[in-house]
Amino acid sequence: MAPDMTTLKGKPFSRAEIEGLLRRTLFYTPSFEIYNGVAGFYDYGPPGCALNANIIDLWRKHFVQEDNMLEVDCPMITPHEILQTSGHVDRFCDWMVKDPKSGEILRADHLVEQVLEARLKGDKEARGQATVQVDDPKKKKKKTHGAAQAVKLDDAMVQEIEEVLAKIDNYSGPELGELMEKYDIRNPATGNKTTAPVEFNLMFQIPNIGPSSSLRGYLRPETAQGQFLNFAKLLEYNNGRMPFASASIGKSFRNEISPRAGLLRVREFLMCEIEHFVDPEGGKKHARFHEVADIQLNLLNRDVQLSGKTDITRMSVGEAVEKKIVDNETLGYFLARIQLFLHEIGCNPDKIRFRQHMASEMAHYAADCWDAELQTSYGWIECVGCADRAAYDLTVHMKKTGQPLQVKERLEEPRTVEFWAAETAKKSFGPRFRKDASAVQAAVDALTDDLKEKLSLELKDAGKITLNVPGVNDGKVELTSDLITIERRTRTDNVRTYTPNVVEPSFGMGRILYALCEHVYWSREGDESRAVLSFPPKIAPISVALYPLSSHADFKPLIARLSTSLRKQRVHFAVDDSSASIGKRYSRRDQLGTPFHITVDFESVKNMTFTLRERDTMKQVRAGEKEIVEAVVNMVNGDETWEEVQGRLPTFETQEVDE
Amino acid sequence: MAPDMTTLKGKPFSRAEIEGLLRRTLFYTPSFEIYNGVAGFYDYGPPGCALNANIIDLWRKHFVQEDNMLEVDCPMITPHEILQTSGHVDRFCDWMVKDPKSGEILRADHLVEQVLEARLKGDKEARGQATVQVDDPKKKKKKTHGAAQAVKLDDAMVQEIEEVLAKIDNYSGPELGELMEKYDIRNPATGNKTTAPVEFNLMFQIPNIGPSSSLRGYLRPETAQGQFLNFAKLLEYNNGRMPFASASIGKSFRNEISPRAGLLRVREFLMCEIEHFVDPEGGKKHARFHEVADIQLNLLNRDVQLSGKTDITRMSVGEAVEKKIVDNETLGYFLARIQLFLHEIGCNPDKIRFRQHMASEMAHYAADCWDAELQTSYGWIECVGCADRAAYDLTVHMKKTGQPLQVKERLEEPRTVEFWAAETAKKSFGPRFRKDASAVQAAVDALTDDLKEKLSLELKDAGKITLNVPGVNDGKVELTSDLITIERRTRTDNVRTYTPNVVEPSFGMGRILYALCEHVYWSREGDESRAVLSFPPKIAPISVALYPLSSHADFKPLIARLSTSLRKQRVHFAVDDSSASIGKRYSRRDQLGTPFHITVDFESVKNMTFTLRERDTMKQVRAGEKEIVEAVVNMVNGDETWEEVQGRLPTFETQEVDE
Repeated sequence: MAPDMTTLKGKPFSRAEIEGLLRRTLFYTPSFEIYNGVAGFYDYGPPGCALNANIIDLWRKHFVQEDNMLEVDCPMITPHEILQTSGHVDRFCDWMVKDPKSGEILRADHLVEQVLEARLKGDKEARGQATVQVDDPKKKKKKTHGAAQAVKLDDAMVQEIEEVLAKIDNYSGPELGELMEKYDIRNPATGNKTTAPVEFNLMFQIPNIGPSSSLRGYLRPETAQGQFLNFAKLLEYNNGRMPFASASIGKSFRNEISPRAGLLRVREFLMCEIEHFVDPEGGKKHARFHEVADIQLNLLNRDVQLSGKTDITRMSVGEAVEKKIVDNETLGYFLARIQLFLHEIGCNPDKIRFRQHMASEMAHYAADCWDAELQTSYGWIECVGCADRAAYDLTVHMKKTGQPLQVKERLEEPRTVEFWAAETAKKSFGPRFRKDASAVQAAVDALTDDLKEKLSLELKDAGKITLNVPGVNDGKVELTSDLITIERRTRTDNVRTYTPNVVEPSFGMGRILYALCEHVYWSREGDESRAVLSFPPKIAPISVALYPLSSHADFKPLIARLSTSLRKQRVHFAVDDSSASIGKRYSRRDQLGTPFHITVDFESVKNMTFTLRERDTMKQVRAGEKEIVEAVVNMVNGDETWEEVQGRLPTFETQEVDE
Repeated sequence: MAPDMTTLKGKPFSRAEIEGLLRRTLFYTPSFEIYNGVAGFYDYGPPGCALNANIIDLWRKHFVQEDNMLEVDCPMITPHEILQTSGHVDRFCDWMVKDPKSGEILRADHLVEQVLEARLKGDKEARGQATVQVDDPKKKKKKTHGAAQAVKLDDAMVQEIEEVLAKIDNYSGPELGELMEKYDIRNPATGNKTTAPVEFNLMFQIPNIGPSSSLRGYLRPETAQGQFLNFAKLLEYNNGRMPFASASIGKSFRNEISPRAGLLRVREFLMCEIEHFVDPEGGKKHARFHEVADIQLNLLNRDVQLSGKTDITRMSVGEAVEKKIVDNETLGYFLARIQLFLHEIGCNPDKIRFRQHMASEMAHYAADCWDAELQTSYGWIECVGCADRAAYDLTVHMKKTGQPLQVKERLEEPRTVEFWAAETAKKSFGPRFRKDASAVQAAVDALTDDLKEKLSLELKDAGKITLNVPGVNDGKVELTSDLITIERRTRTDNVRTYTPNVVEPSFGMGRILYALCEHVYWSREGDESRAVLSFPPKIAPISVALYPLSSHADFKPLIARLSTSLRKQRVHFAVDDSSASIGKRYSRRDQLGTPFHITVDFESVKNMTFTLRERDTMKQVRAGEKEIVEAVVNMVNGDETWEEVQGRLPTFETQEVDE
């Protein structure tokens, strides 16, 4: 799928325009700007905060309340020992390179990707093929040493580069170093060769917790660890019932090497994470899978990417699980639920795909992972990860702490289990081996089932077996059948103990918010400057704006009256009583994505009727206070559409002179 | 006011019981417990998260939406330079002492307070007076070297200690050191003398932002700085109108020296902060002050505390402002609004007071400060600070960055300003002083109005004046009236430029949550173990629980039907279909504070009616689905009381056999 660089209404897309709009209207702005800013940090202003709060509220309803998840809120500061156990101290790293002359530090994979993409683009230009124009004034200003410009490559090289780019996320640091050598990849800003890639840990360090330096920690890289540490408490809270899910909403941190790309790569970000704990036996079925089985997904699986392609397969999640493209029902259930959520907040269904991670791209804890990616002017962006972490985390924490992070399942039918037993004769064994007894016993205990089966036959045939016991005699010890018995036995289990597996849908809320803004952005026909953000009513920062036609005193009590009604109904509204013309005021509200507008005019003073205008269609209806407020409440709650309201309330036609 | 150590229904209060309950039911639990925990960090479990979310939601409505505040969300990681400018690097400190033998580090003021309080208690015991029993098993286990036990003090000493304790927050580090010497205050755990108090900065350090170590920072100690840095953007967003307020909801951090006391003293905590920007001229009036002027507050002002007392004055906020006990209307407006909020979430009105800070207790930026304190078993606890930060923060940031953090007010009536002008004769001045001209001009420019007035008379009388100009001639320069004119002039200003003052209500949400739990906690008559948390319906973690009488299949569709109705009305509900008796299930829900209970029984299957039971009264009504759901929605939204519902729906009497 080629990137779709048109807006909602088919006009050419300008990133500079939308980013300018979002900053100007305070959806978000760079942090610490009066101190010249720090890359990778953003402030949300009033509309950004309201949009964020509405999306989080919807997330809580869609996931937490719908599936009775157990929400927890844990600290961001996390002691060293925990993140060492989880593997983050050793493995939560990116590869960085340094320009030895300029001192600039770059992320190795981003550098390779950026330079090779520039070469492909140069090749297309040289061949006279149109390339996608993404209007980004910053990029134009950059120098481009080392990145080829309008240079034709031979066909084999083009294919080679395309294949490298398709699996760019699959390379290790040393492999990236080899690619940089092979393709002579240099810092585009200076033309210099860089140092070889070295690892950089992405966690922010906290050197001391409390006044002494004996306890250090990090800012968490994910909310997940707090949830795992609470597993035993949550299982008990859930009356021991499995499966269940926990959930957390909170900030996490990545000390990015060289953050760019606005909200898409930041150092402090809001995550919503779910940890769904499931029995690893029985194929990880999900009780509500049938509710979503028919939902169609755009899938880009691992094999397609490894073959150097990016072709999408569209199929129902039911079929994907049946064909084992998606491993199991639980994973499939969440992929479908994630898509439903993205649709509900207003993402463009054609700009959503699910991409499977390649082997070496996966986080150290993941057994499988699918990303929900949203298409933006920056390309396809990972916005939600859905990883199968298997039993990794619970196992490592249990091993480290000795706490039982397991489920004890009372079996309805006691289960008879056959097993191989190797038992030594306690009485004669000790006197026979004396100081070596425990070493020999350890060698016996370490025997695998396969070996036990083989040795049992030897013992039967020869009356003795020989074991390897390092450090005893010449390393070999003979055991006769008076000293050891090896046989098949059975036991009856009433309880089954297992470590649950974890399926983890993990949402990067800043990325979703930015991609959504690109998806709902367009501009009015015939007037480029009239930008509109078509948020669905239920998540728009402000649901309805009230406008007195002018500053005339008669309008004030009516505005107050409507305000009281809307407040009582818990509708988020704003009064715009500035002296600008109604047209200008509508236009300003379009930029904030306000879906409904109520105007108070002289007719209102006479007969208590008001006009209600909808943002996208600019159509209006006119009715009394009760009807108008009720219509707004219904539309914000999703109980009625604008078309239905238009159908039942009288249309109002007006010449908006000043628009 | 002596601490009121009874529960809501007058029974003796047990802190061990309520803290046990809150941990067992996962309102909150110590973090990292399977790793043996770290002091000062807590996890919120499912009911804690829901309670917190409801309180925050109410806060946003009560403050942000009600007064059209501009919400912002800024990073927690904050560069060094900003917090150095704000004064936090130098002055956000506590005084700590160290036990040189055990290595234990203690907060100096807490140590003095703890030891002196123990002596007063010992004195009361020795005199045979009853002391308040706070049941805290941890305290009992502690050794108490150095803290007197049942030792009678002479009357003068008792009075002296009481006076020290009344102003314990007013001492500097050296003063605390003197008190420790004077009263021989030692580490109670060991009986050892400690080192003298030294300062410890309470911010968590971030040694490097990004891969190089050139940029360091801290975790923010308050959300306020992010709001100040955005002042110019927010003023513009508000169309330049004053006054206005910004608001932030987010985590802040204090690297506490030795945190104890549960949720009351933690290292990572949620704050809700408002920065209300107001013109310093005109007495800081507030347009909505009349709406709150009659509200009665419990006030403990600075003078009363300095006289060593803790007597409360009860008066209306209108009177307090009129009498200048509370400095101005804006401060008074927020004190009243804070009290209304605390009432709305369910705090006990008798356990709220407002205490004014003493001079040296105030944060470095504050000109005045009142704390809303809530009474708990730990004493009166600061839960909301309401500080007048004057122009401190905007001024220091403006000075540091050169950015205009000011308001330009277009004056309706141009304003005529008289001023003293000292003007040199440009033509003759330069040739006369040559290389010294700029030094002499600087001396002229530096003249104050008072000096100018004096010199103008000299110039008139003598035709010349003498200025001190270091480094020129012998340090004195004579100026004759052909070289300088000094006179009274007038100018007309159309614009007034000023730096706003800031009034800051700042909420510690964890403390409020804990204090609230103590305020609403009680136990049922005649059955000590049946604890109840009487949260108001609108903030209870779960609004309503549904109970099928048994696991009979006929109940399932009815539960599903009620669930759908409640979900559609956005009511937070839970289904409790465990096999426990109805009585046990009610009892478990009481501990979570669930206010309403709907039971599905065999009668329901026959005629589609259900019982609705209220938590505190245990009374029941019975009606059809529509009426029951409507009543719950009304009560949760605050539109109807339980008494009103009882009045209009038929009462249901039952023998609850198994309760």
